[in-house]
Amino acid sequence: MSKLLDDIVREFSRLPGVGRRTALRLSMQVLRWREGDVAEFVRAVSDFRTGIRHCARCNNLSDNELCDVCANPNRDRSTVCVVEQVGDVMSIEKTGQYRGLYHVLGGVISPMSGIAPSDLKIDLLTENIASGAIREVILAISTTVEGETTLFYILNRLKQFEGLKITTIARGIGFGDEIEYADELTISHALANRREVEKAD
Amino acid sequence: MSKLLDDIVREFSRLPGVGRRTALRLSMQVLRWREGDVAEFVRAVSDFRTGIRHCARCNNLSDNELCDVCANPNRDRSTVCVVEQVGDVMSIEKTGQYRGLYHVLGGVISPMSGIAPSDLKIDLLTENIASGAIREVILAISTTVEGETTLFYILNRLKQFEGLKITTIARGIGFGDEIEYADELTISHALANRREVEKAD
Repeated sequence: MSKLLDDIVREFSRLPGVGRRTALRLSMQVLRWREGDVAEFVRAVSDFRTGIRHCARCNNLSDNELCDVCANPNRDRSTVCVVEQVGDVMSIEKTGQYRGLYHVLGGVISPMSGIAPSDLKIDLLTENIASGAIREVILAISTTVEGETTLFYILNRLKQFEGLKITTIARGIGFGDEIEYADELTISHALANRREVEKAD
Repeated sequence: MSKLLDDIVREFSRLPGVGRRTALRLSMQVLRWREGDVAEFVRAVSDFRTGIRHCARCNNLSDNELCDVCANPNRDRSTVCVVEQVGDVMSIEKTGQYRGLYHVLGGVISPMSGIAPSDLKIDLLTENIASGAIREVILAISTTVEGETTLFYILNRLKQFEGLKITTIARGIGFGDEIEYADELTISHALANRREVEKAD
């Protein structure tokens, strides 16, 4: 068969959830695009991979040293919302209800998937807290087994900070559900009803 | 938010069946690829769009003037299998049971979708038959309403050719099913049990 077709089908098949059938369908769509559209697609993919960075302060995806949230002087720098991944930041930002900063862990602790605490940006979080201005840490982590493990690990790491308010978003989000997939109302509600954690010793 | 992330999410969202959530997931995968992998992906997409052609004889996708099937001297040039789309050629080739040539219509007649007979490569088919060597035309078209409409339209166009054997693949494929999604055994069976069409007048 056509080598060009084979190549594009193989490449699309490397994307998650895309089998050969879907890859063929995506390829046919590329054929329907104008050449300018294809150039834009290709440029966006390429520029993203080469240009995207992690925000030096919060680990969010960013075009610059600091992400748009951290660089925004109007954000409340005394509150940090800790999330698993970039998609969570996007979901929370869409509610327009949150004015503080974020901290993107980059995943959750998962022995099954070989993700250890050291694979997450937890040191960066404690460094940020140690350096001053943060008065409240909101833990917006999914209520999955891995999420709960991560939550308790972080709580333990934060015990050292006297006077730091630690909250978790209200459990309006069903157990086992991922934050990324919750609707905006549920996320808004969960943020507004966050509760302070009783620090066990 | 990040412009680079916005751009790649928007571009992935233009693919069929890909919403914002999926686009974000695909983007995160791109981030996990090595830069060389991204370069290969981008090159495959770009080269496909600029380099791919339609075979001058059968309308199959091709890297050259003639596709690999038409250019292969070992294929039986007296038999042509008429299919809707490129995916059908790939499915039939995978059975390894068919040694003839193909003819890719490029769709089916569908007034609902604004696809008229003139949008399909039917003239090219009758030209190929008029020019000589073809003795049998196998109509391997889906048994959908549009497929049946297309089948009868083509039968009508082929009436002019005296002595031409016209067959349809056996109806081992369920009514309403698309050929592209049938399994290899069903397709093999359907090809082996093709029956000659009684030419109505």
